[in-house]
Amino acid sequence: MLRANMERLWRMLDASGEIGRCGERGLTRLALTDPDKVMRDTFVEWATAAGCQVEVDEVGNIFARRPGRDQSLPAVAIGSHLDTTVCGGRYDGILGVLAGLETVLTLNDHGTETTRPIDVVCWTDEEGTRFSRSMMGSSAFAGLFAVADVLVASDADGLTFGAELARIGYAGPRRTGDRRFDAYFELHIEQGPRLDAGDVDVGIVVGGLTAKGRRWAFTGQSAHVGPTPMDRRRNALVGAGYAIAAVNDIGWKYHESGGKTTVARIDCQPNRYGVIPERAVIGIDFRHPDSAVVATMAEEIDAAARAAAARANVSCERVEEWTFGGVAFSEDLVRLLTATAHELGIAFRSMTSEAGHDAYSISTVAPAVMIFTPCQEGISHSREEAIDPRRTADGVNLLLNAVVARANRPPLAP
Amino acid sequence: MLRANMERLWRMLDASGEIGRCGERGLTRLALTDPDKVMRDTFVEWATAAGCQVEVDEVGNIFARRPGRDQSLPAVAIGSHLDTTVCGGRYDGILGVLAGLETVLTLNDHGTETTRPIDVVCWTDEEGTRFSRSMMGSSAFAGLFAVADVLVASDADGLTFGAELARIGYAGPRRTGDRRFDAYFELHIEQGPRLDAGDVDVGIVVGGLTAKGRRWAFTGQSAHVGPTPMDRRRNALVGAGYAIAAVNDIGWKYHESGGKTTVARIDCQPNRYGVIPERAVIGIDFRHPDSAVVATMAEEIDAAARAAAARANVSCERVEEWTFGGVAFSEDLVRLLTATAHELGIAFRSMTSEAGHDAYSISTVAPAVMIFTPCQEGISHSREEAIDPRRTADGVNLLLNAVVARANRPPLAP
Repeated sequence: MLRANMERLWRMLDASGEIGRCGERGLTRLALTDPDKVMRDTFVEWATAAGCQVEVDEVGNIFARRPGRDQSLPAVAIGSHLDTTVCGGRYDGILGVLAGLETVLTLNDHGTETTRPIDVVCWTDEEGTRFSRSMMGSSAFAGLFAVADVLVASDADGLTFGAELARIGYAGPRRTGDRRFDAYFELHIEQGPRLDAGDVDVGIVVGGLTAKGRRWAFTGQSAHVGPTPMDRRRNALVGAGYAIAAVNDIGWKYHESGGKTTVARIDCQPNRYGVIPERAVIGIDFRHPDSAVVATMAEEIDAAARAAAARANVSCERVEEWTFGGVAFSEDLVRLLTATAHELGIAFRSMTSEAGHDAYSISTVAPAVMIFTPCQEGISHSREEAIDPRRTADGVNLLLNAVVARANRPPLAP
Repeated sequence: MLRANMERLWRMLDASGEIGRCGERGLTRLALTDPDKVMRDTFVEWATAAGCQVEVDEVGNIFARRPGRDQSLPAVAIGSHLDTTVCGGRYDGILGVLAGLETVLTLNDHGTETTRPIDVVCWTDEEGTRFSRSMMGSSAFAGLFAVADVLVASDADGLTFGAELARIGYAGPRRTGDRRFDAYFELHIEQGPRLDAGDVDVGIVVGGLTAKGRRWAFTGQSAHVGPTPMDRRRNALVGAGYAIAAVNDIGWKYHESGGKTTVARIDCQPNRYGVIPERAVIGIDFRHPDSAVVATMAEEIDAAARAAAARANVSCERVEEWTFGGVAFSEDLVRLLTATAHELGIAFRSMTSEAGHDAYSISTVAPAVMIFTPCQEGISHSREEAIDPRRTADGVNLLLNAVVARANRPPLAP
């Protein structure tokens, strides 16, 4: 069995951690910004030096291919993302891409060839922090988002995805989605506390739970904060406040069975002292292991938003809703990871992902699976995100050996 | 008795209503912006054409003087402000300044001289929308704010009051506060529903009630919205949400006795989908006719903020607090207005102001009083703000005749 060079992987992670650094150990590397360009250039440089052939598609997804003996076979892909949230962590996504590169480098060290090519993939804008939809590149690749829609998405300053992609030089020629994978592997930090709290350092991820989101808008009327009596006020922010409280209480109601609710975002207008706010929009996210419960939570959240609006004497409207997850990963690949872990003597637990990942999109067009490694206290999307190299090695070695096994399996009969 | 030319006043208000227009009938003319400069230039042009001598002080307050027979006597001043909130109304403040100008024009029409000069004053940045403190110019004039502090105040883009004042050409040479008033009159729309709902069109304002404000900051920890269990979350926005709801409930508790509470502003970080917010700051305003009740409300609001933080498992801190109002206007001037109203046959009610006004500041350095006129439904700080010229005329004529009476009263024995 092969062993990855964890020191080399850590040098790459440390170099990445300087590109868009926020404070001591955070990263602000939003999609298609200058730091994202620098990181992409660095990745392409490393991959090229490792002998990979690099291609970029129309939405900026980067594919670094280590050739296989049979170039006519679809590649085994290892992917994740290099973008971050605002002052987020230095491992979320990045570890998965660089573990893919480390897989290539380890194979190079040993002069090991594989039957199938291996593609190391960087998906564009997984976080959705800048253009407000997450998993943009992988969803476009899988045909879940139209390329045209992705290119016209705009950020808070009105800059479009397409213009920014061209500006940083990553509007590639390759048609998005015009590539087949034999299998897709994604290694990722768990972003939750289960592995960190236990004594097992690897999660084999069998699927992703259903997550839903919606934006509720509250509309009142601006007026002077002083002389306007309480019974004549229509304060949109008060509607939002009651809703934030109620949504959080719904999360607690389902806490024991693994449910959670989040209001992560609020936009209030005019948001000025002296003026009763006329509009407030909140973004709500909720998840539960049981899809039927998610549906019930959706009803409760919508009812809570309406009740909050009524209590604040404002009107309300659900202006957007979305669903993702509810994914079952490839049983074949789960079996392969399980068998490989046994061969390597690696302890693992079977897990379900609670966060969204590019693997969710790719699972709709190829067999896909994920591996989780621990992160300290389960914290991510934070400058406090931290991982331990010793507790990460098992996951990286599992990825490496499972990918090689998959890449070398006999071609299927035609 | 004199009668103002309401058609001329309305033409001036309509011209003003085009300078920074927002939608059909709103105005966005924040202090020291380009529209504010255009309106100031227009006011100076009108005042100069009316024969006034114009002076500007260090913080941009504009004084347009109609000379009196005895120039050694302090002027009788009529003032208010020409700036607005974001998409606010076209009468709030503006009516008071232009009614002052109309007073001068009516006196000119009749060739009427007065013993004392009459100053029409435009105070800089009453609204506080841009630089976050209200009544800036009049407070500096009264010595309540240091001129140096005013000049370094910065807006959301980091532009300072001083730099913006110089940019629009209104950093005047006159030392702020270096001017005495015999009396100060301010005509203003009520900004509340009492006059509009009744059949009396004039309020003689005997004072202003006490208002307090504070900013509470909630601090949690950013983390991923998906895998982070409810019992490990420290969502700062949830702390703010519980506080918004509780503060509003406190307002209702005091509604019957004239109390009100407002959360008008929220700032949330990082305010991105997928990330649990780590910081949220809310701005709270509360008022009551009884100062002792305001003090009780302050305790209840602070306790509610702390309870909200505890419930959301976040920390909290009161980062700022302020008090204004609690003003009793000049009894002499109230008597003068009352007597003048009787002479004119104008019905009025005695009122207390619930909003802040420049007259509050000026009342600390000169005898001051206010006149209220109705506004539709009591709505202001809104593009829906509207007034009826017929219901405004009594207030303007009361101002005109009371100012002339005061300006002509015999000089006090030395």
